[in-house]
Amino acid sequence: MASVSFHLAFYTLCLINTKGKKNKQKLNCVKINGTKSFSPSKVDLLSQNSGLALTSVDSEANVYIPKEQYRQNIPTKKQLVDPFRQGIIIEEGVGYRQTVVIRSYEVGPDKTATIESILNLLQETALNHVWMSGLLGDGFGATHGMMRNNLIWVVSRMQVQVDHYPIWGEVMEIDTWVGASGKNGMRRDWLLRSQAAGIIFARATSTWVMMNQQTRRLSKMPDEVRSELSPWFIEKQAIKEESPEKIEKLDDKAHYVNSDLKPKRSDLDMNQHVNNVKYVRWMLEAIPDEFLENHQLSNIILEYRRECGSSDVVQSLCEPRQIELINAGIQQNNYNCLNGYSFSSGILEGNGLLGSLNQGPFSYTHLLQIKGDSRNEEIVRGKTAWKKKLIAAPFAP
Amino acid sequence: MASVSFHLAFYTLCLINTKGKKNKQKLNCVKINGTKSFSPSKVDLLSQNSGLALTSVDSEANVYIPKEQYRQNIPTKKQLVDPFRQGIIIEEGVGYRQTVVIRSYEVGPDKTATIESILNLLQETALNHVWMSGLLGDGFGATHGMMRNNLIWVVSRMQVQVDHYPIWGEVMEIDTWVGASGKNGMRRDWLLRSQAAGIIFARATSTWVMMNQQTRRLSKMPDEVRSELSPWFIEKQAIKEESPEKIEKLDDKAHYVNSDLKPKRSDLDMNQHVNNVKYVRWMLEAIPDEFLENHQLSNIILEYRRECGSSDVVQSLCEPRQIELINAGIQQNNYNCLNGYSFSSGILEGNGLLGSLNQGPFSYTHLLQIKGDSRNEEIVRGKTAWKKKLIAAPFAP
Repeated sequence: MASVSFHLAFYTLCLINTKGKKNKQKLNCVKINGTKSFSPSKVDLLSQNSGLALTSVDSEANVYIPKEQYRQNIPTKKQLVDPFRQGIIIEEGVGYRQTVVIRSYEVGPDKTATIESILNLLQETALNHVWMSGLLGDGFGATHGMMRNNLIWVVSRMQVQVDHYPIWGEVMEIDTWVGASGKNGMRRDWLLRSQAAGIIFARATSTWVMMNQQTRRLSKMPDEVRSELSPWFIEKQAIKEESPEKIEKLDDKAHYVNSDLKPKRSDLDMNQHVNNVKYVRWMLEAIPDEFLENHQLSNIILEYRRECGSSDVVQSLCEPRQIELINAGIQQNNYNCLNGYSFSSGILEGNGLLGSLNQGPFSYTHLLQIKGDSRNEEIVRGKTAWKKKLIAAPFAP
Repeated sequence: MASVSFHLAFYTLCLINTKGKKNKQKLNCVKINGTKSFSPSKVDLLSQNSGLALTSVDSEANVYIPKEQYRQNIPTKKQLVDPFRQGIIIEEGVGYRQTVVIRSYEVGPDKTATIESILNLLQETALNHVWMSGLLGDGFGATHGMMRNNLIWVVSRMQVQVDHYPIWGEVMEIDTWVGASGKNGMRRDWLLRSQAAGIIFARATSTWVMMNQQTRRLSKMPDEVRSELSPWFIEKQAIKEESPEKIEKLDDKAHYVNSDLKPKRSDLDMNQHVNNVKYVRWMLEAIPDEFLENHQLSNIILEYRRECGSSDVVQSLCEPRQIELINAGIQQNNYNCLNGYSFSSGILEGNGLLGSLNQGPFSYTHLLQIKGDSRNEEIVRGKTAWKKKLIAAPFAP
């Protein structure tokens, strides 16, 4: 009887929510095809009165909490629209677009989105793309076939290129799609477009491989997983890479070294590992504050080597690059090289050449490693390229 | 001519987006009444061809970026629906409800939203409520009248009570509204409801006063600001507080002390101050990890004393409370006190009394202070109450 009364209460709530309030959005009580939805239609509610849909009573508050699957509502079939996440399927049925508004806590002191927020949104839209595909099992983006084979996704390389940073309140459209990468890998790309500006602000690409969750060894892509994924693959690339160069390995002679970095509980993600965004924060924190205040990241490349667990102690090494430029997409002739320092043409034109002197290098090489007793173990190598912040620039309010 | 071609390009983009794709959500090209919208209607676009709507050319990428106001699109009149943020006006025209889906990076290792994520969402919905009101000037939630009087909001007290933590992918409705607090203050409350469960998961209340941005002194509420705000005030309270007790001040004899906490650039918000969420993280990091792994925060009270700037060095003090209980809303007779330790009835029933022994205290007192040469300065006092995590509990997956 208790479960019946809860069902009725929930049904009543939905009725109240959908009538009598003119301004009410039609966001409640949405039934999505193929989901194991805790849907509020009368038929569904009555059919669920067997009790299957509900968990046991929460003893303290004396209320019923639906099972995790009804609260997460992961679809078992492909969806074309997700009204809650404002997501739609694009690219002839295989790509995903989500509309997001940059939130107040996603921006830094200059009111523009931080690179960490952008990385978070890339992860979020990737997972929501898998959500829409109907392939999402439990876990962090693994498909049903991957779960049957005990496989998880591991990112091996990532590049993010930011031309303009979105500002607080800006409406952004994030497109993402996947493609083949070699025989056993997958490429995932993104485009971030400002709706008001109508142009692309940032591009990103990444490559992923599969790892056995128990043995922690890389795995070939099983046929059953390939048949799940390959219908979603397209050729389009967000960033054209002619020949991705390797990032050199730094050693203890690096110019800047932050040691004794210890992951905190709040740095761990659902996989119990240190989240990628924390890696980037550790990398950037090795760069002097004076540089960070006057420059904005325009390009970052990450090469992942191994996982970092909660008990590891991490060291962040960083070396300024004085000549080399990694800002993909900008032609070499847009740069001048003087006294070993590099300047973008925008800086030379905007602030004058003299004003740009003594502003230091615009590119860094990075390494995060785990300090071991006998030897250190690499977690991730990185390269960052930077632009001078233009004071009073329209897109850096 | 360049600006004309951009307008046409943007107009074309909207046309493409709104026709010919059956699954396309009507999210693009929305015109909101009273906004200084960079709206894509043909008339608007042509009228903007005077160039007023556009900023200068971005010299590097050779593209046009609309001015900040067109990208933020802050309304100058009251709005009833915000399709981008999924927000609506409720409570007979004065409250605000936003539907959000808990994102992958907002949850911790146990797949439930972190308290930091919940605090971020409270801040976000509060600002979006002001956005909808048509009162938002520039800055962090200040009204037009406040800006004319050079006033900013300062939070003096905050309480958050969490009965259940939302999980990854859960659809939440967050309601927020404001009321009077004394003669010169404002109360802001929130309710967080799980759409699938149909019940309230968390409640929060806060009190705010105004400060002169230059003198940093508290200010009375000017009449012109009162006339802006008071039409929005209602009496309803999310948490009934009979007599809010004062939090005692800890001293250097506190059981746990974390010293030398230094704000990083990424900890600063739009006001160039350390964000409230960082305060809470510093407080909670003083609690031993073993305790945090097995308990979840059920109630937190914060009393703010002064601001913390980017150059301050902070100390986090923390003292376990063995008898006192602050879990508002739960009656005293739901608790037993044994050997100086407190247990909730849920724990006594769920895990058995013996299983609960040696699990330590369920309440802490906190203090964040700035270490000074002659004396320390309080930033914020806090109290937290905790529940034992129930392993295999339906709402703690």
